[in-house]
Amino acid sequence: MGRFCLISLPPSPTTSSFPTYSLGCSLMAIEAARLSPSIAAAAFLASRPPLALRPFSLRRRFPLLRVLANSSGGDGRVVALSSSELRKRRGLSSSSGAADSASDGDEKLRSLRRLFARPDVAIDAYIVPSQDAHQSEFIAECFTRRAYLTGFTGSAGTAVVTKNKAALWTDGRYFLQAEKELSHHWTLMRSGNHGVPTTSEWLNDVLPSGCRVGIDPFLFSFDAAEELKDSIANKNHELVLVQGMNLVDEIWGDARPNPPKEPTRVHDIKYAGIDVPSKLSFIRSQLAENGCDAVVISMLDEVAWLLNMRGSDVPHSPVFYSYLIVEVSTATLFVDNSKVSKDVLEHLEQAGVKLKPYEAIISEVERKKILRQFNRENIIFAMLLLIKTLIALSRLAEKGAKLWLDSSSVNAAIITAFKSSCDMKKKGKAGEEVGEKEASSNDRITGDPSVHNGVISAVYNVSPVALAKSVKNDAEIEGMKNSHLRDAAALAEFWCWLEEEICKSVPLTEVQIAEKLLEFRQKQDGFIETSFDTISGYGANGAIIHYRPTPESCSSVGSDNLFLLDSGAQYIDGTTDITRTVHFGEASPRQKECFTRVLQGHIALDQAVFPERTPGFVLDVLARSSLWKIGLDYRHGTGHGVGAALNVHEGPQSISYRYGNLTALQKGMIVSNEPGYYEDNSFGIRIENLLLVKELNLANSFGGISYLGFEKLTFVPIQSKLIESSLMSPSEINWVNDYHEEVWEKVSPLLSGHSRDWLWKNTRPLLDV
Amino acid sequence: MGRFCLISLPPSPTTSSFPTYSLGCSLMAIEAARLSPSIAAAAFLASRPPLALRPFSLRRRFPLLRVLANSSGGDGRVVALSSSELRKRRGLSSSSGAADSASDGDEKLRSLRRLFARPDVAIDAYIVPSQDAHQSEFIAECFTRRAYLTGFTGSAGTAVVTKNKAALWTDGRYFLQAEKELSHHWTLMRSGNHGVPTTSEWLNDVLPSGCRVGIDPFLFSFDAAEELKDSIANKNHELVLVQGMNLVDEIWGDARPNPPKEPTRVHDIKYAGIDVPSKLSFIRSQLAENGCDAVVISMLDEVAWLLNMRGSDVPHSPVFYSYLIVEVSTATLFVDNSKVSKDVLEHLEQAGVKLKPYEAIISEVERKKILRQFNRENIIFAMLLLIKTLIALSRLAEKGAKLWLDSSSVNAAIITAFKSSCDMKKKGKAGEEVGEKEASSNDRITGDPSVHNGVISAVYNVSPVALAKSVKNDAEIEGMKNSHLRDAAALAEFWCWLEEEICKSVPLTEVQIAEKLLEFRQKQDGFIETSFDTISGYGANGAIIHYRPTPESCSSVGSDNLFLLDSGAQYIDGTTDITRTVHFGEASPRQKECFTRVLQGHIALDQAVFPERTPGFVLDVLARSSLWKIGLDYRHGTGHGVGAALNVHEGPQSISYRYGNLTALQKGMIVSNEPGYYEDNSFGIRIENLLLVKELNLANSFGGISYLGFEKLTFVPIQSKLIESSLMSPSEINWVNDYHEEVWEKVSPLLSGHSRDWLWKNTRPLLDV
Repeated sequence: MGRFCLISLPPSPTTSSFPTYSLGCSLMAIEAARLSPSIAAAAFLASRPPLALRPFSLRRRFPLLRVLANSSGGDGRVVALSSSELRKRRGLSSSSGAADSASDGDEKLRSLRRLFARPDVAIDAYIVPSQDAHQSEFIAECFTRRAYLTGFTGSAGTAVVTKNKAALWTDGRYFLQAEKELSHHWTLMRSGNHGVPTTSEWLNDVLPSGCRVGIDPFLFSFDAAEELKDSIANKNHELVLVQGMNLVDEIWGDARPNPPKEPTRVHDIKYAGIDVPSKLSFIRSQLAENGCDAVVISMLDEVAWLLNMRGSDVPHSPVFYSYLIVEVSTATLFVDNSKVSKDVLEHLEQAGVKLKPYEAIISEVERKKILRQFNRENIIFAMLLLIKTLIALSRLAEKGAKLWLDSSSVNAAIITAFKSSCDMKKKGKAGEEVGEKEASSNDRITGDPSVHNGVISAVYNVSPVALAKSVKNDAEIEGMKNSHLRDAAALAEFWCWLEEEICKSVPLTEVQIAEKLLEFRQKQDGFIETSFDTISGYGANGAIIHYRPTPESCSSVGSDNLFLLDSGAQYIDGTTDITRTVHFGEASPRQKECFTRVLQGHIALDQAVFPERTPGFVLDVLARSSLWKIGLDYRHGTGHGVGAALNVHEGPQSISYRYGNLTALQKGMIVSNEPGYYEDNSFGIRIENLLLVKELNLANSFGGISYLGFEKLTFVPIQSKLIESSLMSPSEINWVNDYHEEVWEKVSPLLSGHSRDWLWKNTRPLLDV
Repeated sequence: MGRFCLISLPPSPTTSSFPTYSLGCSLMAIEAARLSPSIAAAAFLASRPPLALRPFSLRRRFPLLRVLANSSGGDGRVVALSSSELRKRRGLSSSSGAADSASDGDEKLRSLRRLFARPDVAIDAYIVPSQDAHQSEFIAECFTRRAYLTGFTGSAGTAVVTKNKAALWTDGRYFLQAEKELSHHWTLMRSGNHGVPTTSEWLNDVLPSGCRVGIDPFLFSFDAAEELKDSIANKNHELVLVQGMNLVDEIWGDARPNPPKEPTRVHDIKYAGIDVPSKLSFIRSQLAENGCDAVVISMLDEVAWLLNMRGSDVPHSPVFYSYLIVEVSTATLFVDNSKVSKDVLEHLEQAGVKLKPYEAIISEVERKKILRQFNRENIIFAMLLLIKTLIALSRLAEKGAKLWLDSSSVNAAIITAFKSSCDMKKKGKAGEEVGEKEASSNDRITGDPSVHNGVISAVYNVSPVALAKSVKNDAEIEGMKNSHLRDAAALAEFWCWLEEEICKSVPLTEVQIAEKLLEFRQKQDGFIETSFDTISGYGANGAIIHYRPTPESCSSVGSDNLFLLDSGAQYIDGTTDITRTVHFGEASPRQKECFTRVLQGHIALDQAVFPERTPGFVLDVLARSSLWKIGLDYRHGTGHGVGAALNVHEGPQSISYRYGNLTALQKGMIVSNEPGYYEDNSFGIRIENLLLVKELNLANSFGGISYLGFEKLTFVPIQSKLIESSLMSPSEINWVNDYHEEVWEKVSPLLSGHSRDWLWKNTRPLLDV
């Protein structure tokens, strides 16, 4: 069995006032996430082969355009930054050149290793993952610690540092970039390549038996930490939860960017549809049904949805850093006060939601530490704060509350803190001595984490918010429909423009085209930002599913090959995600055959009818069958959930060849329909619409149950000239014609001039065969 | 935690020389079986709603024609018995009338309860399930103890008797029959009806806390016994494994039919394809790979397949009662010596397989008991036997062998015996005292059953034979193809005959038609018997998926409604299973629409192409989609595995909406393709062919893997007039025409006269629409 040691450190004076416990998601966390229905959708595009370092949707979209909320305007409009600007912002280009970078890297490693030796740390290795404390897909800059430490700026990767070695794990799409960016002090571990060990296998290999491996417990979900603990226990290593400071932050010091302080806003009830008291009431009914007294919600989109609030702390997702604890009669939002305007405060007060500092979620159980921390500045303030905050987790534990915890998303710091509180309660001496005991206690988690000293203190279950959020109400559906039409208008204008430019042989790169697309979208009402980094891939680049063009290296788009464009937007009322593949010249018969097979899969899924209680994976085969018939396939899932004016990837539903996610598709859910085909070094094809699950009114309803189907949300033409009609059945041809007729009817009123003409031309019926 | 008590009893003088520990499968066993890939296929037709008492394929086919091997001829030809004759053979009609039956039932219950009180039994309740010790689908008459005790002759049901209550659980298809057959001493528990408790819920309800619930451990798989133990532990009841005698046998006494003594035969290598040493060698390589020293094989078809032997101990399946232990250098068949002819003995000796009495499998660990048993007759014989038999399980345990056990199929008696032996070994005193200790020991199984006193003595895994058996070799495939053509010829003759008879308005019942079908099949070379009880359902009877016509109550078949006929045969070289649905008059538009939708599902599955490693359940949706489109569905799986000249239902593969069976479809496997639709009180439709999984040679092979598809084995026309062509796509119409062309080409050479004309007429192409 593994050992699990928790140490609490007083924060260093260099620590930012923003909580030092923060971002990152280890490989293990991501592996665990695959099995968690709550974020299983995020795994929908994960590779089939073992080279999958982490689920695709968590890694596919590296910032091409780093879109930041423009705080000056306050209207949510965004500006795009080039990759070089981005790197500058990240403080990575302060030194210009590999040598400098190397010496810089060396100094960082030396500083980090000096911390290993501190008696209150005393570790032999430290793992630095990529993500934030909330399992977010997109994270704030201050949490890019792995990038800061290693110099490697790719979105996916895990750094592991021992006293004399430093290694970075990343996957195939980042091998070249990592080779360029890493100094000679780092060993690049090419995940997925034959013989490359996992991080824990490597640790078991390079460390002598019985070492102490440190992590920041905020950066690992509880499940991930458990898995790590077990896997390094093979070599009798002990997992040390280094509390109170993140070691990378210690060496980053004052240069570390400030945590985001973007203001939050109320998500208007006309878009949210259901008010906060009703949502809280529903969650409380879920608590009651499950015999729980409280739930800790740590996924940022879940907090935003539940409180009808939005923010802009991270790119692409309108969320804000926070935690929420909902109890039977109270609810507490843990958020930086400066983000809460008077309007928002009023909104929260009306819903009976109390505010506490973001840090308080953990400090409530880490009393001693808080006391020390604030003592330094103002003892009175600290005492007042303590009176306010000494109630949540520890109070829950003390009163024997049963807590609902989603251990696949809630981080190890919170869960171990709660467990500590439960232990304190057992000891019967809440108060004076506990802090000391806790600071030095070894928290050994073995077996069922919900049972401590025989007392069931927590229920480990998927967050009750996940499913509620995924089933859209009428207002959310209306917002999604409306925003999709405006998005379709922007795309029609864009494609019209692009076709004309290519026709005139204007040289345009993949990046320039993505920037122009952003301009068209920015003109639409309610536009906020892109919902992910645009994937703009010409020719062979389109075959790289995770393609990340850079201004320096990207291709020009011409008329000799296929062009794949996967993009989306956040609007005030909805979120979009669409992929089209086009050819501006003459596609080869091979390309047309493949395109047609992908389209047939897209149509088969779009047309599916299925009984209630059908999990998404049952339908996945419908999207692949046409490709399988000729021995082709694609190495990603077919559909992910999409939030309503929220995250572009959400769970719990998905449509994938992965069979683990048993979440049934339900009326009101939104999923993407995006089969593809990728021919290495040649071309890529993907056709993606968003679909709303709806109840059908059929002639029969065998079994007395509902039968469900899909309603399209996306209305942008599919390039007819890529369709090999002779392969299509009459009903498939009718599908294309009906779709294009609907596109014309819905979108043409929003267009004029060239783009309207373009839409007309591109929605003409295919000739029957 | 539940308690698990093992008691060993000296056999009563009335006990037959055939082992008293024998058949039966509890509800729990069946529930467990659902999750076991090894027999998951057997669950393919299980109902979706909770009323499923047990998997459909285990219950769907109750003897309509009880087909017994004709031992006088020795040619394997069979004779059909009527239901009434059957009941007579079962000794159930010795008393004629409900009153007699009731008093008889009362006397049986009184006798059974007297046994409860015996000091060496001391139980408060006894559970009597339906099946044999090998989880067989079809069982020998001497094992129909539940029917003997209760008077209820249905194939599915579990009896539970307490000191003052007696209850029988059965499912919807048997409610009426059970009401007629049960005396007033019995309470009928209508499984699946709202509020009806399970057997263990009922026991927990009617017994005061802390009672002893007895079972014959041979009649429960180890998993099932574990589940039962846990579920009754809620009320602090103890599960008592009553060894050494079956209490029903005690009261059945001399009237109990003799166990089957049918001779076994060698399954010719020209049909088996692979000789026994090669098969044993493969199993031994599997043992080595899994770090095991021996495997206990208890499924009868697995023994038959592995040893290239066949028997006729039970109807429909060419198997013989036996166990097999394969060790690294030896193999031991536990079978009644009288069944083994000189030829078979030679065959076994050549393969290095030793013979032991069937009983020895367990007596080897139950030394004391054997000693007592044989002491009574001949002490010298007993000693000699002991010397021979005191080696298998106990020797394995004593030498610390690691045993491969499929706890979903191997019964609790064997596994607990092995565990006892391991315990003996631990005690270090094999021999004199052990028997006594064992007889009074409480065998408490808690947690991982493979670990006893910290020593891993067994590996619990699906039988290594199951997968090997399911992947057919070339000879088996050839035999299956050949036997299917002869079967098709018999069916063409049959359908031609039936059409003429109905046309002439000859009155024929469902049972008479099934008998006539048997006659046509009997004329074919190599015919042995039916592979299951024919389902012959006209009109509303066709809608009863588990329909069991009886001569007394069945319908006449006319030309006003659909007629569903599901039948199959055992031939020397293969096993068939085919369903056709026809109308001899004019089908309604509704019936044609439903038939066409079922056919479309059948075609979609038949045409499926899929990558290697695809589990069957992925394809299930293809067979349902066409029905779902109009809100229809069917409450059974789509396909089950089929043995080669073996059981008509086998695992581990299946094609079902149940997602638990992850077994991939592999080249050489055989599955049925049998979507259906059933309109209550109106009509039933099912179209079933058997399919061989084959590797395809496609233009591409994305991922460098194989792509698989199906080859049809069944060649019997599908009634064209039931097809609503306007609903069919051109490619579906082509499928029907191509199939019928192939049927004509393959089967017409085997026919002449009217039946050849019939085949010609019924294989003409559909007109294109």
